[in-house]
Amino acid sequence: MRNILLLGAGRSASSLIEYLIQHAREQQWHLTVAERDLHQAEKLVQGGEGVAQVVELDASIAQARSALIAKHDLVISMLPHFMHMDVLKDCLRLKKNVITPSYVPDALWPLDAEFKQAGLVVLNEMGVDPGIDHMSAMRIIDGLHAKGAVIEAFESYCGGLVAPESDNNPWGYKFSWNPRNVVLAGQGPAARYIHEARIKYIPYHKLFRRTVRVDIPGLGAYDGYANRDSLKYREMYGIAGIPTMKRGTLRKSGYCEAWDALVQLGCTEDGFAMELPAHATWAEFTSAFLPEDAVGSDVRSAVANALNLPPDGTVLAKLDWLGLFGSGTLSQDGLSPAATLQRLLEEKWKLEPGDKDLLVMWHRFRFRANGRTKEIHASLAVTGEDTVHTAMARTVGLPMAIGAKLLLNGKVGGRGVLLPVKPELYDPILDELATLGVAFKEQEVEVRT
Amino acid sequence: MRNILLLGAGRSASSLIEYLIQHAREQQWHLTVAERDLHQAEKLVQGGEGVAQVVELDASIAQARSALIAKHDLVISMLPHFMHMDVLKDCLRLKKNVITPSYVPDALWPLDAEFKQAGLVVLNEMGVDPGIDHMSAMRIIDGLHAKGAVIEAFESYCGGLVAPESDNNPWGYKFSWNPRNVVLAGQGPAARYIHEARIKYIPYHKLFRRTVRVDIPGLGAYDGYANRDSLKYREMYGIAGIPTMKRGTLRKSGYCEAWDALVQLGCTEDGFAMELPAHATWAEFTSAFLPEDAVGSDVRSAVANALNLPPDGTVLAKLDWLGLFGSGTLSQDGLSPAATLQRLLEEKWKLEPGDKDLLVMWHRFRFRANGRTKEIHASLAVTGEDTVHTAMARTVGLPMAIGAKLLLNGKVGGRGVLLPVKPELYDPILDELATLGVAFKEQEVEVRT
Repeated sequence: MRNILLLGAGRSASSLIEYLIQHAREQQWHLTVAERDLHQAEKLVQGGEGVAQVVELDASIAQARSALIAKHDLVISMLPHFMHMDVLKDCLRLKKNVITPSYVPDALWPLDAEFKQAGLVVLNEMGVDPGIDHMSAMRIIDGLHAKGAVIEAFESYCGGLVAPESDNNPWGYKFSWNPRNVVLAGQGPAARYIHEARIKYIPYHKLFRRTVRVDIPGLGAYDGYANRDSLKYREMYGIAGIPTMKRGTLRKSGYCEAWDALVQLGCTEDGFAMELPAHATWAEFTSAFLPEDAVGSDVRSAVANALNLPPDGTVLAKLDWLGLFGSGTLSQDGLSPAATLQRLLEEKWKLEPGDKDLLVMWHRFRFRANGRTKEIHASLAVTGEDTVHTAMARTVGLPMAIGAKLLLNGKVGGRGVLLPVKPELYDPILDELATLGVAFKEQEVEVRT
Repeated sequence: MRNILLLGAGRSASSLIEYLIQHAREQQWHLTVAERDLHQAEKLVQGGEGVAQVVELDASIAQARSALIAKHDLVISMLPHFMHMDVLKDCLRLKKNVITPSYVPDALWPLDAEFKQAGLVVLNEMGVDPGIDHMSAMRIIDGLHAKGAVIEAFESYCGGLVAPESDNNPWGYKFSWNPRNVVLAGQGPAARYIHEARIKYIPYHKLFRRTVRVDIPGLGAYDGYANRDSLKYREMYGIAGIPTMKRGTLRKSGYCEAWDALVQLGCTEDGFAMELPAHATWAEFTSAFLPEDAVGSDVRSAVANALNLPPDGTVLAKLDWLGLFGSGTLSQDGLSPAATLQRLLEEKWKLEPGDKDLLVMWHRFRFRANGRTKEIHASLAVTGEDTVHTAMARTVGLPMAIGAKLLLNGKVGGRGVLLPVKPELYDPILDELATLGVAFKEQEVEVRT
């Protein structure tokens, strides 16, 4: 019997738990789901009698957390990012392997040697983005390198979206993951990428303007905006000298232009508490970001004038649909502009019962081989079943679950801080994902040069 | 004999030291100037034989710093802001009064009761801005309140500039104080002010566009951009309910539009190290912020196109004059965009031998009294003598020096954390400043309503 501990069972944990329960008897697993919200966790382990249990845990209490970790063979942590290092240090001390969907924290690399020395594995970035993006890209990159191709360009975009059949709002967007991350997307240091051997920087206030149109076969047109740092995986992918590389996030065509209007106004800022009372209207919220001399017969036309946009255009229509020009009230004071806006969006962009989400990923490689220039286009589209069994939960959870199986069965040779960029991980995971309906479509096309 | 300790003798310390030396015999003072750069400090205390001495001090070494503080009766700290709280805590523990030109740190207010209990004074914001701005505004506000006027609007702007006779560059700007603060001006949370009872927020990327034209009698037209927080002094000034209040910074007309171009490009960002090598050219630096599809026959026209500006206009001419389109090299790598730019500006905007700086302050009050609406306009213009005896050094240093005299002579009744907003401070200081050539011109005008 191998004992698996899942720390945190939030909205993306359903598919992970289902997979672990489903394979528990055959694999001789026992699963413990440790979560602060017992009710939420119990719903997710339904049907797991005899192989899975739920325990209540506030993971910020170090003693309770490490006592629980000590009793298990493998830890899967889906806790918020800020709790991450505490769990990883517990695992090092208690000699436990651990899997997470999160980015490698900077503070983890210095511990790599210690994890290696202890013969332990920290398997990071094992969700969808980061996760499946690494795996699918590396399978293509390794394949190209094996046949002697020179990769000239790699672009990669991913988005957690709403399925077309459930897309009934003008933004073409509903939340399938952490709303706060969506509202704060792109804030911080300028986004960077490399284009024809020149590093490019995009400041936040240009990020949603400098978008790229991405056409996904069978789905339509999307806007892609650049991720924070498209440079950092170059070495790890074995393409350190690649002239062009850009990673980004997909939104339905038209979303970015409208989101940019919110950025331009300043109402996505998170660094200060607004001075508006709870009974202030959304029109007052919006007006607070307009110059006092903004002219217009109403807030909508004043915004249009201030941003130099047509008052009856699609951007203003999207803002209007959110209620930002209306007499609804904020109902809470003392929040940042971003947090105030987030409360509105959580209501407007909620996945309703019956709604399905959509996870889209798209890669384009340009390469030269045998004197010819070609492109590989690879795309993944996964549609959720409902608001619990989302595409997001499937694509985040299944790679971790399969990773857990590989690790527990001794199929992972690497030790220390790992990402899924080696065949021993990406091959079995991508192969099994394909059998579970998470499969890329790939095509190779010749490029006239 | 009263022993005064000056911690830090940077570029704004000259007038302060001169005043203290000049009045040392009559006031029975002895001055110790503690500075890391002995050579710099010795130049500034020339002529102070018998009443002033220089000691070498690295103020970050707690023991050396507090040993020195213990031997003195009054501390004047001109150390960088981050060392501030350490000095203040020393002064509390060692029971010393202290004067600083810096903003009250948030961490200081909780110690107010302890300073009061010990009968001590921490006299903050005693330079020019903050400092003379408070004093001159409060004299007018108290005067208006005394005659029963209702203040409807208060706008206040200040700028450390270059004197017209030394203004020989297209920006109309040279550094008379900390260059880093100039480059990072306005970054952080959105600027906020209140206009006709509505709070207004300006995000950084709009700050240098939403400027106000300020005409200073006898000097000409300036751009005013909003300071971080125009709201926080409302209570302290006794005008908590004022419908309109805005504080800002002055630059010569045209500066802000050109600075905004740098902001729009993203090259004032400080949050990350650039990936350009030291031998990269300034044209390459600038290009890194342009989209890859920015079109133009050269970098200048590509920037003009990207920012939608005329290529032969004044903004592009200002950027060109800095060399941002040229083949000069950065000569240092690994810096943030802001720090890279700062190195260039320090060379281009340096006060040259013979150059004079200019300190300008301007207030406008609108008020109702006896059924009439009037305005008071007050302006201050101080021209420096040379690159050491700058207007900045005079206006920062003299209020502190006079404050030291008042404090040592028992003329300050308040205890605890103080700002110069009471007549016991602002009256004698403004009166003596006027005798030293630092005098406001004031006029009252009727407003047709």
